[in-house]
Amino acid sequence: MSRLTITAVRLTPILVSDPPLLNTQGVHQPYTPRLVVEVETADGVTGLGETYGDTTYLRLARPLADALPGHRVSDLNALFALAERVCGDAPPATGAATLDVGGQRGVLTADKLRLSVVSAFEVACLDALGRTLGLPVHALLGGKVRDSVDYSAYLFHRWARHPDGVPCEPDDWGAALDPAGIVTQARRFAREHGFTSFKLKGGVFEPDREIAAVLALAEAFPGMPLRLDPNGAWSVETSLYVAGRLRGVLQYLEDPATGTDAMARVSAGTDVPLATNMCVTTVPEIRDAFTRDAVQIVLSDHHYWGGLHRTRELAAVCRAFGVGLSMHSNTHLGISLAAMTQVAATVPHLDYACDSHYPWQREDVITTRTRFRDGRVTVSDTPGLGVELDHERLAVLHGRWLDESTYGHYRDRDDAAAMRAADPGWQAPSVPRW
Amino acid sequence: MSRLTITAVRLTPILVSDPPLLNTQGVHQPYTPRLVVEVETADGVTGLGETYGDTTYLRLARPLADALPGHRVSDLNALFALAERVCGDAPPATGAATLDVGGQRGVLTADKLRLSVVSAFEVACLDALGRTLGLPVHALLGGKVRDSVDYSAYLFHRWARHPDGVPCEPDDWGAALDPAGIVTQARRFAREHGFTSFKLKGGVFEPDREIAAVLALAEAFPGMPLRLDPNGAWSVETSLYVAGRLRGVLQYLEDPATGTDAMARVSAGTDVPLATNMCVTTVPEIRDAFTRDAVQIVLSDHHYWGGLHRTRELAAVCRAFGVGLSMHSNTHLGISLAAMTQVAATVPHLDYACDSHYPWQREDVITTRTRFRDGRVTVSDTPGLGVELDHERLAVLHGRWLDESTYGHYRDRDDAAAMRAADPGWQAPSVPRW
Repeated sequence: MSRLTITAVRLTPILVSDPPLLNTQGVHQPYTPRLVVEVETADGVTGLGETYGDTTYLRLARPLADALPGHRVSDLNALFALAERVCGDAPPATGAATLDVGGQRGVLTADKLRLSVVSAFEVACLDALGRTLGLPVHALLGGKVRDSVDYSAYLFHRWARHPDGVPCEPDDWGAALDPAGIVTQARRFAREHGFTSFKLKGGVFEPDREIAAVLALAEAFPGMPLRLDPNGAWSVETSLYVAGRLRGVLQYLEDPATGTDAMARVSAGTDVPLATNMCVTTVPEIRDAFTRDAVQIVLSDHHYWGGLHRTRELAAVCRAFGVGLSMHSNTHLGISLAAMTQVAATVPHLDYACDSHYPWQREDVITTRTRFRDGRVTVSDTPGLGVELDHERLAVLHGRWLDESTYGHYRDRDDAAAMRAADPGWQAPSVPRW
Repeated sequence: MSRLTITAVRLTPILVSDPPLLNTQGVHQPYTPRLVVEVETADGVTGLGETYGDTTYLRLARPLADALPGHRVSDLNALFALAERVCGDAPPATGAATLDVGGQRGVLTADKLRLSVVSAFEVACLDALGRTLGLPVHALLGGKVRDSVDYSAYLFHRWARHPDGVPCEPDDWGAALDPAGIVTQARRFAREHGFTSFKLKGGVFEPDREIAAVLALAEAFPGMPLRLDPNGAWSVETSLYVAGRLRGVLQYLEDPATGTDAMARVSAGTDVPLATNMCVTTVPEIRDAFTRDAVQIVLSDHHYWGGLHRTRELAAVCRAFGVGLSMHSNTHLGISLAAMTQVAATVPHLDYACDSHYPWQREDVITTRTRFRDGRVTVSDTPGLGVELDHERLAVLHGRWLDESTYGHYRDRDDAAAMRAADPGWQAPSVPRW
């Protein structure tokens, strides 16, 4: 048995507190499910990975975890075929709607679901491999080309707290429901983390109100890059209207409309660059979107794409087609932030500051929270990912997941359901919403 | 200083004997220049790389070799910017014609020239890194997905020996100048190495004669994949004529015409798949060729593309666009064959047997020649590339390179000049030749 042989895999589903952030589908639940993967080797080394924790993901993770012992943590390219074999074709059909509203994650195919699970195992294997060899993960990906990675502040319209009667961990951010509130939020992000670029989650209010918020940000932070992301909520016409109003103000407009066809039509009508993490989220979507020039920037997400090697491959495809690259984020913890930072450090043409929800997450499963300084995360040179698991905190968050009577209905993220706690008649709007 | 820090780099230009293989530009010289790169680390480990050895390449390799000490063998992504900085924009303009006729290597830009040099350093670093960590190179690329790599027999029209009066190392293959000669050659390749697919270098004789050779192969080896590669020697019309005659016989037709535009027109007129190692040899050429469906298969070459990581990236681009992948070969030795095999082992959708000139090279710089069994090379699991340098042989071949009075005019490969030793009036034909 090689020292790199996997001897055990632990899966720990957890529920992490999340603030009442608004998006076009509804509002973040007070707790969001994540899955922590630990891969242990014959050497006694443990590697960490993290991914979505919804029930469907857990169902796929279990057979993969069972199949891994005996394989080596260096066998990353073989993970995909292994997962295909053992996870089967677990069709996302039944859960698709539920899963999709939570994250605005684009198409949800069986392949993508499986890749989102594999990603956590790939990252955990890389972490274990790096720890064993005494090398940071970036060195296993060809080495870093920068010492820190730029992140963007992720601004949300939000309530001060979750609806009455809903269990939650309150925070002190207060509400942000108009341009002034967004600017106040941005100022705090800039003060606390040094961010110098800002992204506003849109699709929540009518477009003119969100345009006003972006213009207010432009006035408050002159010259700093701004982005707006309504998660595909708009028609082509509305998208072009907003692009026209914010031309010269936005660094890019993210997923104004839903689907490659609509994005291509928006793209043809404006010179505001379009970014996406919705119409290009899988390999089969690339060809059509790129050949039609539907998007100018892809926001990669190592969870979707199947890990850090696959993220680097996506970067190469973007480079070949002159498409810019940045990074998407959904609610995540320090393990994934470390993984994002390690891979981002290795990609020469990472053209834009990456997104991260991390500042919104006050709970974590690592011993030392990662800090942003001047909006940047320093690239760790410590072996592996450079983060350590806080077993006590993990147990607490897992305990919450186990407490089915209190938290059971948060095991699957559903932003529309969360919205119904405040507005019982709420249904996730169909697109285009405006 | 880390154990991975590079402490010394040795460059050894050599001349390797090469048989009188014919192509559309002329004939292989009796000796071809190659460059062997040795990268030594603080740990006392030495990694090996190999690339083209023509004067222009040597001129770029020197400053890169001088700049490397102090860097780590794991810093592969940073190699490219380093090379750009220290090699300058050494324009290939003056030597371009000379360089190009030898290898039919597609466009020759400063970028491509530099990448061809960087590739040998990247491979040497990977070899050193693998030796240090106790891992095969494939494990540094995410791990192998197969235990052996398929290669194709590389058939050439050839003379029995180089022209009278030219110094050379004779072989016992005899001449092959007609269909019967090609079939005899193929039978020996099949007998000695077990090859089960065959590629004929074309563009040497009028198309009907080469069609006859392919048909003779089809009769001799029923059902086995066959390919024909005239190195862009034909017009679109001739290409379509040949494709029509060999439809259902050829696995693919390689570079029938020169340039993406001509290839796209051929592609539009036939359902015989087109392969290339001439119109897609650099990143900037990908977009046009893929969006126009000019080629269905890319023959990657880790020398051109800048090493093994870049080869994997090219594979990802091909996968995203549904373009098949195989591997190109030019005259090379055992170090490059090991590198090709290691990277080929990691690419899941390597769809076709790879090319290799290796069986034609009877000289080598490694201690144990790599063997083909059943047309396959076993993927080494030995740390690094799995080959050892034969210092004595290296010294002999370097001595030949140093002996300027006898061999000086072979320091730059020029197949047209070699042809003039037999046919003083010979000029490399302009394309289309037929």
